[in-house]
Amino acid sequence: MTDWQQALDRHVGVGVRTTQALIQLIQPEDWNKRPIPGKRSVYEVAVHLTVLLEADLRIATGATAEEMAQFYAVPVPPGQLIDRLDQSWRYYQDRLTTGFSTETTYWGVADGSTGWLMEAAVHLYHHRSQLFDYLNLLGYEMDVILFE
Amino acid sequence: MTDWQQALDRHVGVGVRTTQALIQLIQPEDWNKRPIPGKRSVYEVAVHLTVLLEADLRIATGATAEEMAQFYAVPVPPGQLIDRLDQSWRYYQDRLTTGFSTETTYWGVADGSTGWLMEAAVHLYHHRSQLFDYLNLLGYEMDVILFE
Repeated sequence: MTDWQQALDRHVGVGVRTTQALIQLIQPEDWNKRPIPGKRSVYEVAVHLTVLLEADLRIATGATAEEMAQFYAVPVPPGQLIDRLDQSWRYYQDRLTTGFSTETTYWGVADGSTGWLMEAAVHLYHHRSQLFDYLNLLGYEMDVILFE
Repeated sequence: MTDWQQALDRHVGVGVRTTQALIQLIQPEDWNKRPIPGKRSVYEVAVHLTVLLEADLRIATGATAEEMAQFYAVPVPPGQLIDRLDQSWRYYQDRLTTGFSTETTYWGVADGSTGWLMEAAVHLYHHRSQLFDYLNLLGYEMDVILFE
């Protein structure tokens, strides 16, 4: 792997493992809570986190709005969140190491494969932060180190 | 610039501009509020966002705990936050384009220059998300598109 592939592998890897650590702390009675009124529930943010690495790269390779609606419609029960994130992470790592061709997204954004891999990385950290804020708002005491 | 330099330039650039857009929305009476009890205030998160790109790369090049304490002690008044972030962004872009040598951090983490540039990118998105959550908790109506 090149330097930048190693850098993404390391720092997205940290994002994946710490996201899984946060998800494992969530108590069942909190899944449906909305610590920020009007925004996604705890469960909805957790599901989004588990699929977004794969979703963003599917979008990057030209998936249509309809195809993405079908992708997002596949249910991810709470007990499968950790495995679903592992699956997305493998999908991401495969494309990180082998490369892929991009197409303009269905809403008109164009970027190269490296740009999309980067976008998915910052997207993961964005929602990991949201989940961390949610758990703080719900009073969780957390011993998860978010950065190395 | 190589593909990965362009990717960081683009996506950290989005992070910088959208962070500035969020900061410009903040009403003076909200600076000292703590929407998540026990965590940084709105002002403290904003200041952290404006210096972290520079701070992280200073740490990456071997700055000591004492040097970083001095760095963080320099006050950034609310009226200078936008310019301070521009300054950090230029610092980051300079090192992105010219490269730099890294040293093990004062707490023992080792990474290459590409890894540190990536770490600073996801660190920016982490706290931008926190500020976005804060403003949502405070009832701000925002028309800022966080991703392209």
